[in-house]
Amino acid sequence: MDLGLRPELQGRLEQVAAMVRDEIAPSEAEFHAEVARGDRWALSPRQVEILEGLKARARAEGLWNLWLTEDGGAGLRTVDYAWFAEIMGRSPLAPEVFNCNAPDTGNMEVFHRYGSADMQARWLKPLMAGEIRSAYLMTEPEVASSDATNIAMSCVREGDEYVLDGEKWWATGAGDPRCAVYIVMVRTGGDDLPKHQRHSMIVVPADSPGIEVLRAMQVYGHDDAPHGHMHIRFSGVRVPAENILLGEGRGFEIAQGRLGPGRIHHCMRAIGMAEAALEMMCRRSLSREAFGKPLAQLGANHDIIAECRMEIEQARLLCLKAAWMMDQGDARAAAPWIHQIKVVAPRVALKVVDEAVQMFGAQGISQDVPLSAMWTHLRTLRLADGPDAVHRRQVARAELRRHTQEKV
Amino acid sequence: MDLGLRPELQGRLEQVAAMVRDEIAPSEAEFHAEVARGDRWALSPRQVEILEGLKARARAEGLWNLWLTEDGGAGLRTVDYAWFAEIMGRSPLAPEVFNCNAPDTGNMEVFHRYGSADMQARWLKPLMAGEIRSAYLMTEPEVASSDATNIAMSCVREGDEYVLDGEKWWATGAGDPRCAVYIVMVRTGGDDLPKHQRHSMIVVPADSPGIEVLRAMQVYGHDDAPHGHMHIRFSGVRVPAENILLGEGRGFEIAQGRLGPGRIHHCMRAIGMAEAALEMMCRRSLSREAFGKPLAQLGANHDIIAECRMEIEQARLLCLKAAWMMDQGDARAAAPWIHQIKVVAPRVALKVVDEAVQMFGAQGISQDVPLSAMWTHLRTLRLADGPDAVHRRQVARAELRRHTQEKV
Amino acid sequence: MDLGLRPELQGRLEQVAAMVRDEIAPSEAEFHAEVARGDRWALSPRQVEILEGLKARARAEGLWNLWLTEDGGAGLRTVDYAWFAEIMGRSPLAPEVFNCNAPDTGNMEVFHRYGSADMQARWLKPLMAGEIRSAYLMTEPEVASSDATNIAMSCVREGDEYVLDGEKWWATGAGDPRCAVYIVMVRTGGDDLPKHQRHSMIVVPADSPGIEVLRAMQVYGHDDAPHGHMHIRFSGVRVPAENILLGEGRGFEIAQGRLGPGRIHHCMRAIGMAEAALEMMCRRSLSREAFGKPLAQLGANHDIIAECRMEIEQARLLCLKAAWMMDQGDARAAAPWIHQIKVVAPRVALKVVDEAVQMFGAQGISQDVPLSAMWTHLRTLRLADGPDAVHRRQVARAELRRHTQEKV
Amino acid sequence: MDLGLRPELQGRLEQVAAMVRDEIAPSEAEFHAEVARGDRWALSPRQVEILEGLKARARAEGLWNLWLTEDGGAGLRTVDYAWFAEIMGRSPLAPEVFNCNAPDTGNMEVFHRYGSADMQARWLKPLMAGEIRSAYLMTEPEVASSDATNIAMSCVREGDEYVLDGEKWWATGAGDPRCAVYIVMVRTGGDDLPKHQRHSMIVVPADSPGIEVLRAMQVYGHDDAPHGHMHIRFSGVRVPAENILLGEGRGFEIAQGRLGPGRIHHCMRAIGMAEAALEMMCRRSLSREAFGKPLAQLGANHDIIAECRMEIEQARLLCLKAAWMMDQGDARAAAPWIHQIKVVAPRVALKVVDEAVQMFGAQGISQDVPLSAMWTHLRTLRLADGPDAVHRRQVARAELRRHTQEKV
Repeated sequence: MDLGLRPELQGRLEQVAAMVRDEIAPSEAEFHAEVARGDRWALSPRQVEILEGLKARARAEGLWNLWLTEDGGAGLRTVDYAWFAEIMGRSPLAPEVFNCNAPDTGNMEVFHRYGSADMQARWLKPLMAGEIRSAYLMTEPEVASSDATNIAMSCVREGDEYVLDGEKWWATGAGDPRCAVYIVMVRTGGDDLPKHQRHSMIVVPADSPGIEVLRAMQVYGHDDAPHGHMHIRFSGVRVPAENILLGEGRGFEIAQGRLGPGRIHHCMRAIGMAEAALEMMCRRSLSREAFGKPLAQLGANHDIIAECRMEIEQARLLCLKAAWMMDQGDARAAAPWIHQIKVVAPRVALKVVDEAVQMFGAQGISQDVPLSAMWTHLRTLRLADGPDAVHRRQVARAELRRHTQEKV
Repeated sequence: MDLGLRPELQGRLEQVAAMVRDEIAPSEAEFHAEVARGDRWALSPRQVEILEGLKARARAEGLWNLWLTEDGGAGLRTVDYAWFAEIMGRSPLAPEVFNCNAPDTGNMEVFHRYGSADMQARWLKPLMAGEIRSAYLMTEPEVASSDATNIAMSCVREGDEYVLDGEKWWATGAGDPRCAVYIVMVRTGGDDLPKHQRHSMIVVPADSPGIEVLRAMQVYGHDDAPHGHMHIRFSGVRVPAENILLGEGRGFEIAQGRLGPGRIHHCMRAIGMAEAALEMMCRRSLSREAFGKPLAQLGANHDIIAECRMEIEQARLLCLKAAWMMDQGDARAAAPWIHQIKVVAPRVALKVVDEAVQMFGAQGISQDVPLSAMWTHLRTLRLADGPDAVHRRQVARAELRRHTQEKV
Repeated sequence: MDLGLRPELQGRLEQVAAMVRDEIAPSEAEFHAEVARGDRWALSPRQVEILEGLKARARAEGLWNLWLTEDGGAGLRTVDYAWFAEIMGRSPLAPEVFNCNAPDTGNMEVFHRYGSADMQARWLKPLMAGEIRSAYLMTEPEVASSDATNIAMSCVREGDEYVLDGEKWWATGAGDPRCAVYIVMVRTGGDDLPKHQRHSMIVVPADSPGIEVLRAMQVYGHDDAPHGHMHIRFSGVRVPAENILLGEGRGFEIAQGRLGPGRIHHCMRAIGMAEAALEMMCRRSLSREAFGKPLAQLGANHDIIAECRMEIEQARLLCLKAAWMMDQGDARAAAPWIHQIKVVAPRVALKVVDEAVQMFGAQGISQDVPLSAMWTHLRTLRLADGPDAVHRRQVARAELRRHTQEKV
Repeated sequence: MDLGLRPELQGRLEQVAAMVRDEIAPSEAEFHAEVARGDRWALSPRQVEILEGLKARARAEGLWNLWLTEDGGAGLRTVDYAWFAEIMGRSPLAPEVFNCNAPDTGNMEVFHRYGSADMQARWLKPLMAGEIRSAYLMTEPEVASSDATNIAMSCVREGDEYVLDGEKWWATGAGDPRCAVYIVMVRTGGDDLPKHQRHSMIVVPADSPGIEVLRAMQVYGHDDAPHGHMHIRFSGVRVPAENILLGEGRGFEIAQGRLGPGRIHHCMRAIGMAEAALEMMCRRSLSREAFGKPLAQLGANHDIIAECRMEIEQARLLCLKAAWMMDQGDARAAAPWIHQIKVVAPRVALKVVDEAVQMFGAQGISQDVPLSAMWTHLRTLRLADGPDAVHRRQVARAELRRHTQEKV
């Protein structure tokens, strides 16, 4: 059970780390100031310049599409990539610079595994090249999507086409002007089918007639422009029948495959944020004084720092184990660990960031330090891809199953 | 130890509750939409209309300045008012409607107790009438204000005047165009004086030359316009010598008196938010279904609801006890309870709101429900008036003091 | 909502406190050493002497049967008695000294309310006089008694008698040689009856033929002699038909009435233990040194002490509110609060005791300080009368019921 | 970072697991019943027969002294042995059966590394053979031993001898009649020496004149006979000067080396207990019914089981990482991880056991299931070798040191 980065990749990890620290992070203030200035949902020329410049640098150094662990990728195992994802988590801009950002990686994986040659040419190629972006449309306002069998968007076959009607929301990235394609979870089957064979995934060009982006959902008041989490209405949207992935009723099959790696990436990026927050907390505690001493010497601060370190350390190891399980080639066997990290990593990271805020005092919640933005982002991870409760349930069921089988 | 509302006040509490529920809460969406529309730091004619209309109604019904437990007030004890504060906590707009909003209540109290006749005429009277607003300037960017003896703003006597230089931030309410006066904590004494006799409070008109409002501090990305939490620079600001309150070196004496009731108000409003969030959580859990059942029947939701109820119940009783202690007339004896509630009430309310968010799923963090705004506001209470750690320290010191004295 | 002790009772409370501190607590070591010496399930002459001496003193001072809030009692409200229970909780021997010990108080209450004149003469009178003791037999080894409708002990009418067969365990006090009578929860009705009308309570003399005390259940290795928690087998035990209380099928009705006050007593005694532990912790932290300072000055100890104080304070207020609700005369309305304290008070007390142990180091778990005995006793309270989960469920159901009714 | 067991050791691990499950665990009830029967501090003939029979079997199968990772040992790395320790943790008797029990392993390690040829012949050889046992005397009643520089036992050189005076307690294993030798931490240097050079370790035969075993310390009421945790007085105990290990003033140097592996063993055994408790909890939740359903389906039980699984999984990985760090050959570099697991592993195991108790109801705290004994043992681990607070402090100092150095 080797959870370390392979030694031959150490140099590349350091390249990525250096680029995040020295080039990407320093560009963020300017990039985000641009958002505030003009049309929030367009990329300004300066934004394009910053982003494409960094992307070109990453591509040139071979730090591109590192997430793809299968043929055609950069040759990393999931465990290896996990270490890269942690580093990328330290800057909101970094994942895109390395073409490793969600939800594109998950979507590319779907196209890579299940897409027709045509889809791969039309969507996968430009996604892999970082020329377009994509969104994944799952959650709906009218149903409790934590139970994904509730998904209700209508998708009816008419001749050579499917016609889609209904609403999706929290479509992350769909606000981006470069977002060209959606993968959409829809209901194609009736109540007569088994629960997990009623749904399908279908590819929908973002500029299809009948698509209306209603609004940007806000996350604790933030619209996360220019990417956004959009609320979208489909009114009689038509796509060719071949746009359906794998075939009718196989939506859950694809979803299971799609979600595992993406969750590991999210969780390792969360670990990266937690490390960054702990660093900030430690430095602050050494440099700021109250009651005649550096904060580090006061009250429970030693204990708080120690607890943060212990929780991060454990959460990282758990994520790496989940990645290692994934690398063993049996996604079903790895599933309980994926569910575990989905609960653990965001929780730990939120705790560390929250403690860091307390160490900073009021400045911690302000625009002067990145802690509040980290917190807001991390908080969404307790809901995205299912609330904690759903994942805990799966962990418990896996645990109990072992004992139930024993009894037989 | 009667922690209940006096029976003769029950009717008025119900009046306030009805007004909050039926008139104020329904006006909020429109009021806040106005902020987003024009100059964030001016009140639009429609905002003035909404607010003044509600205020006129409150005043007409005798629901005005209920917070003032001393002569000249509405005849409520602190315990009584606590019950009103809880109800007002359910709507961000409500406290101002009843002229019970922070930081004005604290400032009015200072003017009421320590202000000269002139100050009372110039500032207290219009504040009591709801005609102007005020700010309290304490925290500074350059020092750890959790140890208030660090406060460093220079205030030097020159003839009949004091000259102020330095920066303050997190001046809540100072962004409001109606904010006419600041009470400012300044350093007037040197290192030769005892630590708690080096500081003073001084009254500064908001339009004094040399005052520059640098920016609005953001709270998890929110500027809280039109009230704001402002970062303000003082450059050679001159005020008459008689503007000093009580006299040089008595800043901490005033601060201690000023903070107790205000903390109780904050905490009871937090309890009100927690109750509102628990209600929302319960209703949601009964109306939303997943896995074939209402959420209320799933997993740990019963336990979560029960824990929220138990924590709110306890926190409220603790706040009421703190209020009762305050009513006994000895603010020093009440201090340990004030410190306790300052830790407990925001923590409990944050927890309840966070659990409510999970029950709502992604909608919980969006603009469609008030939970994210509640959370953001409550989170500041763990820092405002000192971070939790400072209050815990005071609670422990009070506890240990009893045993140290025993030993003598 | 007056949660205080009535002023006229203050003197008596101080008498009890003085007696606990100066007479009862100092006798404990000797009393318990006697248990270890001889037959654990007999009272030695010296034990009798200690106990009866103290009881005589209590009776002489009028500090006797203070728990009885109804006619024939000492004239205290439940709220008043709660304050006495807290003080008695500081010594394991104290409740019996004042004839206020469980399960006798609950049993006396049952006889007082529901017993025939004959039962009152035969059992209530000597119990009130402290001459005999009693047990309450509810839990059974074969069923999950957390769901009390599972209770299965057979009780069949044969002519003028009932015949009982089955096993009970955790019969607290049944090991005591003075234990003369059991109140037993039995199943008298079939599946055709509604779930809560199938059970009855019946009075069984402890020396009835067919009763066999199998063994003493151990609590974390302790047998709690001479009182014990006994495992008892009933084989064809016959009692007169009139021994049934209130009538067949009314067991739950009696249980509900019986349990409320007893739970408040248990919880307030737990608060008393928590206070004692916090005192010990504070004194230890002031007197013991490490790393050149008293422990009180080290690391998180201030925070730990503060958290303990805040939790005790809140839990006590919650218990007092539950008692106050009980005093309003509607046991059903008070029930949600009784469930709340049953979860909260033992949990808080366990936490405080556990933290005290850490402050004492290894001595804390040893026979040299009472913390380990306190912990063991308190831990049982999370199970006795139903595990926490059952009480949380009731709290949640009460909470949700309010919102369900609203909807109608 | 390979945290797995080497594949070639898998078979041996299964042998150990089978022997624990099929031979050792089934012998425990009888072994412990023997303790209760006669002289608690002697081994009965039947106890000797059980124990030596099992030991002979283990030795015959080559499952002996597996803990020794250095020359002369069984060829396991620390990581490998960690997996064995987990399995041995499932039975209190198991570690001794495989000659892997504390404190003997730590003492053997000291003799192995630092002992003279004479010491190795006299003490190490019979210890390695399982013929005698040993104790490690560190903690003292009069000082806070959490700060080990407080250790005060006098050890004065007189000619060719050292003379020891003072008291030690919590000498685990010193009650065993086979305990032949003590390693004792003593104070040999004065205040003029640096703090960590004032202490030494010295070898003292258990039958030396002047040694008096005062009593057995109890752990939550248990004396843990026949091993015991003894309180011992030294009155003018004389040993030859060459009994000092490494030389005067090098006590802390030895202690640091001694404690690392032992802590990993303790922690992995704790993980083993946690796994056993989780298994019991799951089985119970599937087989016991309340409210018409198996407990597994009720309330928060899914969540509780999931949280236990997630915490165990993380704690195990952390322990394995600490072991891996130790295997890298730099004990100082590994130290922060050793401190981390010392806090984490007992805490997690205690939590799991406590939750299992709740699932069992009252039976969970009784002699019928091993949970209460597990809990009691695990609770001592939060104190043995230093309370949690001391370890957290070390973790924080290590964390802060990285940032302090950066600043230089």
